[in-house]
Amino acid sequence: MTQTTLGEPMAVEMAKQQRQISVAEFFEKNRHLLGFDNPKKALLTTVKEAVDNSLDACEEAGILPEIKVDVFDMEEDRYRVRIEDNGPGIVKKHIPKVFASLLYGSKFHKLQQSRGQQGIGISASVMYAQLTTGRPVKIKSKIGPDEQAYYFELKIDTEKNKPEIVTEETIEWDKDHGLQIELDLEGTYRKGKRSIDEYIKQTSIVNPHVTLIYTNPRSEQLIFTRAAEQLPREPKEIKPHPDGVELGLLTKMLERTNTRTLTGFLQEEFTRVGRGTAEDICENATLRSDRVPSRMKRKHAEQLLKGIQQTDIMNPPTDCISPIGEELLEKGMRKEVNAEFYCTVTRKPEVYRGYPFQIEVGIAYGGEQSKDSTVNVLRYANRVPLLYQKGACAFTQTAGDVNWKTYGLDQSGNNVPRGPATIVVHMASPWVPFTSESKEAIAHYDEILDEVKLAMQQAGRKLQKYTKKKTRIKKEKKKRNMIEQYLPHVAVGLKELLDLTSAEEKEIVEKLEAVLQEDRGELEDIEFDPDANPEYDEEFAKIGREDDESD
Amino acid sequence: MTQTTLGEPMAVEMAKQQRQISVAEFFEKNRHLLGFDNPKKALLTTVKEAVDNSLDACEEAGILPEIKVDVFDMEEDRYRVRIEDNGPGIVKKHIPKVFASLLYGSKFHKLQQSRGQQGIGISASVMYAQLTTGRPVKIKSKIGPDEQAYYFELKIDTEKNKPEIVTEETIEWDKDHGLQIELDLEGTYRKGKRSIDEYIKQTSIVNPHVTLIYTNPRSEQLIFTRAAEQLPREPKEIKPHPDGVELGLLTKMLERTNTRTLTGFLQEEFTRVGRGTAEDICENATLRSDRVPSRMKRKHAEQLLKGIQQTDIMNPPTDCISPIGEELLEKGMRKEVNAEFYCTVTRKPEVYRGYPFQIEVGIAYGGEQSKDSTVNVLRYANRVPLLYQKGACAFTQTAGDVNWKTYGLDQSGNNVPRGPATIVVHMASPWVPFTSESKEAIAHYDEILDEVKLAMQQAGRKLQKYTKKKTRIKKEKKKRNMIEQYLPHVAVGLKELLDLTSAEEKEIVEKLEAVLQEDRGELEDIEFDPDANPEYDEEFAKIGREDDESD
Repeated sequence: MTQTTLGEPMAVEMAKQQRQISVAEFFEKNRHLLGFDNPKKALLTTVKEAVDNSLDACEEAGILPEIKVDVFDMEEDRYRVRIEDNGPGIVKKHIPKVFASLLYGSKFHKLQQSRGQQGIGISASVMYAQLTTGRPVKIKSKIGPDEQAYYFELKIDTEKNKPEIVTEETIEWDKDHGLQIELDLEGTYRKGKRSIDEYIKQTSIVNPHVTLIYTNPRSEQLIFTRAAEQLPREPKEIKPHPDGVELGLLTKMLERTNTRTLTGFLQEEFTRVGRGTAEDICENATLRSDRVPSRMKRKHAEQLLKGIQQTDIMNPPTDCISPIGEELLEKGMRKEVNAEFYCTVTRKPEVYRGYPFQIEVGIAYGGEQSKDSTVNVLRYANRVPLLYQKGACAFTQTAGDVNWKTYGLDQSGNNVPRGPATIVVHMASPWVPFTSESKEAIAHYDEILDEVKLAMQQAGRKLQKYTKKKTRIKKEKKKRNMIEQYLPHVAVGLKELLDLTSAEEKEIVEKLEAVLQEDRGELEDIEFDPDANPEYDEEFAKIGREDDESD
Repeated sequence: MTQTTLGEPMAVEMAKQQRQISVAEFFEKNRHLLGFDNPKKALLTTVKEAVDNSLDACEEAGILPEIKVDVFDMEEDRYRVRIEDNGPGIVKKHIPKVFASLLYGSKFHKLQQSRGQQGIGISASVMYAQLTTGRPVKIKSKIGPDEQAYYFELKIDTEKNKPEIVTEETIEWDKDHGLQIELDLEGTYRKGKRSIDEYIKQTSIVNPHVTLIYTNPRSEQLIFTRAAEQLPREPKEIKPHPDGVELGLLTKMLERTNTRTLTGFLQEEFTRVGRGTAEDICENATLRSDRVPSRMKRKHAEQLLKGIQQTDIMNPPTDCISPIGEELLEKGMRKEVNAEFYCTVTRKPEVYRGYPFQIEVGIAYGGEQSKDSTVNVLRYANRVPLLYQKGACAFTQTAGDVNWKTYGLDQSGNNVPRGPATIVVHMASPWVPFTSESKEAIAHYDEILDEVKLAMQQAGRKLQKYTKKKTRIKKEKKKRNMIEQYLPHVAVGLKELLDLTSAEEKEIVEKLEAVLQEDRGELEDIEFDPDANPEYDEEFAKIGREDDESD
């Protein structure tokens, strides 16, 4: 049956149904890919996308962020989310596309670290709101004290992935500059794990330059005041690094360059390639250094790629990445966990697929943490906490692959270890590879897995020193107890053997004890002091731990 | 610093970088979302996308599929993948877009079960091949015996998400109709788990109407000949079901309908709504049944949605779904696993978000399966095996949520159970919600989780009968052994007490034994007979188990 009843080939009939699908239609149908698979997550995702955008915009404009987050319960499973920032605002012309068109943004083609990267997030929230309540998004924007403020109500035409302007007007807004976004959507609010409350708290841990004023649907206000008046170092935009560049990208770059020689091309289009390195690459590729890049064929591009792979090239510059830093990471952890021992590791930047990235790991050990539960792994990407899809994340997998027994934690097989510890992992990069558009878990690239493992092992060795010392002291104490216990019996024995007086016996015991003590040295105290950590904030630590254990 | 050095608001400067991103650019950069995160997976994904497309096309055209899969090792980590089918072919005009434009396809807007659904897969493979080897995809197509065959070489212009035709010509092709696709890409070939070999095998288990001729890069040929000459029932295309329809979709449908009354709209645009049901819905919605749909406002749409939710509506028709079926599923399992006991469950179709779906579960217990390892969970969606992302899959999670101890398997906490068993789960639906575009795991929709759980419990109860019986017989045997062991001693005692002759003693023992046997009834044999399953194919079962245990 390869013919229809009309005698036409089946392929002709089947061809009639072929058509282009808009990216908005695609994500409308596949909205779980964007973090909207259930009402609780939908609410969190919406808050997260808006706050992340506000933080990015403020930092890019050099403004210390102050962000108000209000979530109102509108009853019947509907919530109103309103986020207001003191950022630079958005120029009128761009507002519709930024909020009501998917894959529209400024960060996709830039090699610069930021929270948002693909121009999907907030438009997806607008689409979800529209889908569940039929209501448009409401935007206020003002870009400077002497500028007009604008008000928009927007919907998305999903078939065309284009904005539909419902209302557009000028308004008075008593504010120098900033942005406000308001959305009505179906959702579920719960406290506890993976809640908005927890997301806000974890954001404040690694973003001490931010003030967050959050009012939850129960009308409880939580204020996280900034602890630092300094913005993080502004990450610089960089060119691609030759390591990890692929044939496809290289070919495209060769076609498009304005440079006239191969060495010029290498120096101009890549980071970390000077005259010398460029010539080394050409030599390793057996290509003349004065070849015209745009006239090179595929086989030459292949040769060039091999040449690059055979040449030692300096690691990418670190100024395109803004890590949290060992000190700040420890400070954040101290606030959250009351432990005995803290250590942090910030690795040097590395490269995957031409993108630089940097891994940081912190461990908080002992103290008030339970000995019998799985270690708590807190995951961050570009200072954004990752709350969902733990199991799918490269960080979690690597936490299982490290041999933690060596470092003093319990572990069965390749599972996340058990014991009184919290492990924080942070990846900073101009391009973080997430396992889905909802940006909840890091994809399993070998280069990233390796770096995370090394960072964990490095932190693990610091931990090991502490746990070993602790074990040694424990053993020592046991021995001393034994000595103290048996010494009187030894004394009695000696007294009888040597026929000593009670005074002589006492003297001998004292001498023996002194010798033994001297031998073993001073016993340093390593007991946990719950009040030793001035950073620890009990109330703060509690947020996101109460009420709810459900997904 | 909300002004640039030129005195312009920062927002103006920042606006200059805003731009639209093509969906191809997006997936090129995020290619792990499409299953290309490492070379081994890239190779598998490419074969999978091509084979799935061939199967869909053949079945839609009513042709029994015969598919040749060749994977050649081209050295230096490059592979050539060639897939040839006897399907209906593709008309010339559509070939470039089908293979070299993302989000172009025929299945996205159709409510009909198929393997492919979003028009991304094969174009993504073409993009990956281009990226890693710079080579175009090569296509041969012929749509009928009297038609011209065409040959194309295609690339994707990722910036525009448009095809670029490198070569286009008519050719001679000694074949009535069919399609051949050839791709050169970087990859890694391994046997073992999650290998192409395993994918091909698992495909043949649930698609007995397919002949697959597969030559792997080691030049080993595996031929899976079709076992059934009948195509699966062709799934019918259906209209949306009112249950689970959302406000956004409902509003869109109301705007676009050509119907003139609300009852007409409900009957015309939805499945399972007749005159009576339509009137019930209107009544529950407190809306007049002769309202003009296109003039209804948002608040009326909300009322209508509530009306729908309050009305009992028949489940969607089953003919839009083509499940494997209990018998066939068991047959497939028997081929793969040599077990003592098999049971299968095909649930009735259910609805999530307006899409019907159907869950099937099979269990193979005991026999040659290891008692000490985790139960093997084989996952399928629309007859396609899911090999990756086990941990992220709703099926795996549910397998942990069921209380298997009741049914005779070991289980700790909410983990997948341990014991000598294999569990197969299949979801058939016109719209399967995957956790990513690479279609490797099922998303966590409550309605789906619930159905999978019910299906597992239902199969579990069947298993329980068997495991209980087995336990009972074991106990029984133990008792009988005791009796047999102690009977002679009892006899000796009786002999002494009653002063019996040896003959009398023997008689008494025999009588006692007979009485006890009678009491306990016949002991049915439930021992495993390794040769009892004529379907089991040792060689077949081995495929995908050898060589490689890595990811």
